[in-house]
Amino acid sequence: MTSLTAFPRFDHLCVVLVATRNPLNLGAAARAMSNFGFLRLRVVNPYEVAFREARSAVGASALLKNAEEYKTTSDAVADCTLVIGTTALRSRELNHMLRPLDAGAALIRKQLRSQKVALLFGSEKVGLSNQELSHCHWLIRIPTREQHASMNLGQAVAVCLYELARPGKATFKTPKPQTAAGGEVERITQVLLEALRTSGYLSPRSAPSADAKIRRLIRRLHLGKDDAEVYLGMLRQILWKLRSQGWLA
Amino acid sequence: MTSLTAFPRFDHLCVVLVATRNPLNLGAAARAMSNFGFLRLRVVNPYEVAFREARSAVGASALLKNAEEYKTTSDAVADCTLVIGTTALRSRELNHMLRPLDAGAALIRKQLRSQKVALLFGSEKVGLSNQELSHCHWLIRIPTREQHASMNLGQAVAVCLYELARPGKATFKTPKPQTAAGGEVERITQVLLEALRTSGYLSPRSAPSADAKIRRLIRRLHLGKDDAEVYLGMLRQILWKLRSQGWLA
Repeated sequence: MTSLTAFPRFDHLCVVLVATRNPLNLGAAARAMSNFGFLRLRVVNPYEVAFREARSAVGASALLKNAEEYKTTSDAVADCTLVIGTTALRSRELNHMLRPLDAGAALIRKQLRSQKVALLFGSEKVGLSNQELSHCHWLIRIPTREQHASMNLGQAVAVCLYELARPGKATFKTPKPQTAAGGEVERITQVLLEALRTSGYLSPRSAPSADAKIRRLIRRLHLGKDDAEVYLGMLRQILWKLRSQGWLA
Repeated sequence: MTSLTAFPRFDHLCVVLVATRNPLNLGAAARAMSNFGFLRLRVVNPYEVAFREARSAVGASALLKNAEEYKTTSDAVADCTLVIGTTALRSRELNHMLRPLDAGAALIRKQLRSQKVALLFGSEKVGLSNQELSHCHWLIRIPTREQHASMNLGQAVAVCLYELARPGKATFKTPKPQTAAGGEVERITQVLLEALRTSGYLSPRSAPSADAKIRRLIRRLHLGKDDAEVYLGMLRQILWKLRSQGWLA
């Protein structure tokens, strides 16, 4: 199969939605998959036959149309070497190992480098049945509040895929803007001091200590280079107006 | 206010949904908030008046009923010292610093220990407008695929809150000086805008986009509470002088 995304390993993940009742949730899951770059959706016994038309698959209608449909969970995970279930509950009969999402996702990411992994989500009302859970090697749980653990299906899919798509260490950062040089900051200081004297905020012969406080005040702003130019322009215009009106008066 | 959750710092986060069109998304956002333990929802100009009845708020109907409603973004963030916007885009006119969700969430978590933070989500169609973005100190972006960056609103809220609820590493640092609240910063913005109009730097009827750029310029200063008071005093004096001389002339 040709890779569909920038990350070939993402092709190794099959999102498997079992016995989903609301087609809007299927569409929402498809959208989240497309957002995070996981494009292989499998559907087991959906409640609504016409689920492929769900409007909620905004921008992901092709993904939803290409979803593979299975009669049983067993068939849907047959080619996967690792099968992971999702659950909102802490304890279940089958005594699975339960991992918090971040730890579980780290293990899944490793596996995806070379092997197919199935990630199962159960129906909205009851989650995965014991029958379905019995196919799973272990389970992951999104760390929700105990008082309100059960998430919306589309949101649970989005959160799991966000965590799975998390890059290792390399993250993109926007560069910090260039800081204004001392000379530029001092020009601002001088124009502001002049405006403060002209306006009466400072007395015409303000004490050096008052000037120093203003100077510090401005240094605390850590002005960026571009912003400093804008402030200097503003202050010069204000000072010009303060002075020119003084002459007219 | 008494703490609503096991983590008192979670009470410091205000999720602000601006101009949301689909009440189902409001309900879904409320459900995700309840799942992750953030219980303070603010709503600005929702499209649907009866949004509080959204069925999608499964298990979170009380949270949705208690949502605070505001006419303007400015009012909704007035008591918050840090205002963060969310965006699917990489670049915008207003030159915000854009942080990936995980890095941004780490910074927000620190702030939440002692101060109120607003997390803004825009409307489904267009996201946050430049006007709304101008209230933000910086932006976070969920790392989605470039080919399909735009997420469903309820899913975006879920992913952000999942990341924010992630247990952080306990670090001990000296407390930063208290940051000025949004209302104080907006007062400075208004007085500066008035001074810029009076001085001729801006035309009397400056375009909203020009105002938005000035608003952003001031947000980038990250003013401390004490310094903000000083600047407000200076600007008021300058404005008073600009005006009084105009009358004399």
